[in-house]
Amino acid sequence: MTISEFPGIILASASPRRKELLRQIGIEPAVFPADADENVGENDPAKLVELLSERKARAVLDRIKAGGDLPEDVRSILSSGKPCVILGSDTVVALDGRILGKPKSHGEAAEMIRMLSGREHHVCTGVTLLKLTPPGDVAADTFSVCTAVHVSCMDEDEIIAYAESAEPMDKAGAYGIQGSFGRHIDRIDGDYNTVVGLPAAAVYNHIRRLFGCRN
Amino acid sequence: MTISEFPGIILASASPRRKELLRQIGIEPAVFPADADENVGENDPAKLVELLSERKARAVLDRIKAGGDLPEDVRSILSSGKPCVILGSDTVVALDGRILGKPKSHGEAAEMIRMLSGREHHVCTGVTLLKLTPPGDVAADTFSVCTAVHVSCMDEDEIIAYAESAEPMDKAGAYGIQGSFGRHIDRIDGDYNTVVGLPAAAVYNHIRRLFGCRN
Repeated sequence: MTISEFPGIILASASPRRKELLRQIGIEPAVFPADADENVGENDPAKLVELLSERKARAVLDRIKAGGDLPEDVRSILSSGKPCVILGSDTVVALDGRILGKPKSHGEAAEMIRMLSGREHHVCTGVTLLKLTPPGDVAADTFSVCTAVHVSCMDEDEIIAYAESAEPMDKAGAYGIQGSFGRHIDRIDGDYNTVVGLPAAAVYNHIRRLFGCRN
Repeated sequence: MTISEFPGIILASASPRRKELLRQIGIEPAVFPADADENVGENDPAKLVELLSERKARAVLDRIKAGGDLPEDVRSILSSGKPCVILGSDTVVALDGRILGKPKSHGEAAEMIRMLSGREHHVCTGVTLLKLTPPGDVAADTFSVCTAVHVSCMDEDEIIAYAESAEPMDKAGAYGIQGSFGRHIDRIDGDYNTVVGLPAAAVYNHIRRLFGCRN
């Protein structure tokens, strides 16, 4: 099964970075985010992102089952009569057992960056793949990938300069590895794309396995 | 010293990926590659890329010293009267003590990808920074960064599909981590941008140190 034989993918996320990563590896997803309850009493980063990725994927499945108005590209995938996949995903940044969300202000972004400077933290991304096989079979595969990220020592001027920019505001942990913050990340241990927002190689390999390929 | 106070950078490389990485971290370089002798009797990957990065940077220095026709943006940096930096760089892929260059054909690309499949290899990038301080002082800083890259098990269909595409042809080791080959790379240990072609964080920090910043 090469990439040209891949099933239709419905991405249950509005993140432009996740869409871009799928396109990078040759998948053109239909984007269809649905609201999911993000309140969970879970502090373990890997379990948390797995749980949230599953909720997001199942929220989309519920929308599809409910019928009603669906985007044109989603309807096109569903009406093909072939199996397809709903992909839900969630990413968090974890430091010392604490989970860093998206900063609410530039001041909060500066606080987060100050905590990350000169140290290693972890970025965990959870993924749920729901394989839908007509007429109504659903097979689920949930997993997570965590990557260790080391941030160089930053001085206060660098912290403020980055925190005051537009980059931190919509990102867990207040930074984007693929933007100018790259100058402060001197090494990672694990999957790079997990830090961007989606473990693309793991997604690719899990989808292949869901469709019976093993290598 | 924040990025807005950085010196002018003359990039001694025609690689669009190196230019793009510098732009990503906030540096707009003047691109000015010069021919350098790439024949060396050196098999250690780190020593090899350091040596070649220095030759490339010094070839540009020689061109500048010789006077004659220089690109407008290079002349503008040199005529500012301020210190500036020539940046030379070279990247190789190493596997089992063997150095993989750029493939000369799709068949050779397939051979290289077959060797990389299901295993870890190393990507080493050497960098030479030549700090020029008017009227004629030159300070050199040469270093290298090596990153371990793990490629998933690929089946023959996947190997051929990638090898036959346009992506492998201008790249050491026959792949680009930032392209569709990302679906086959499940983890790295080290700096990601080193694999793309330039250790951006190390370059940033070394330039700061060359200009007296320590943190």
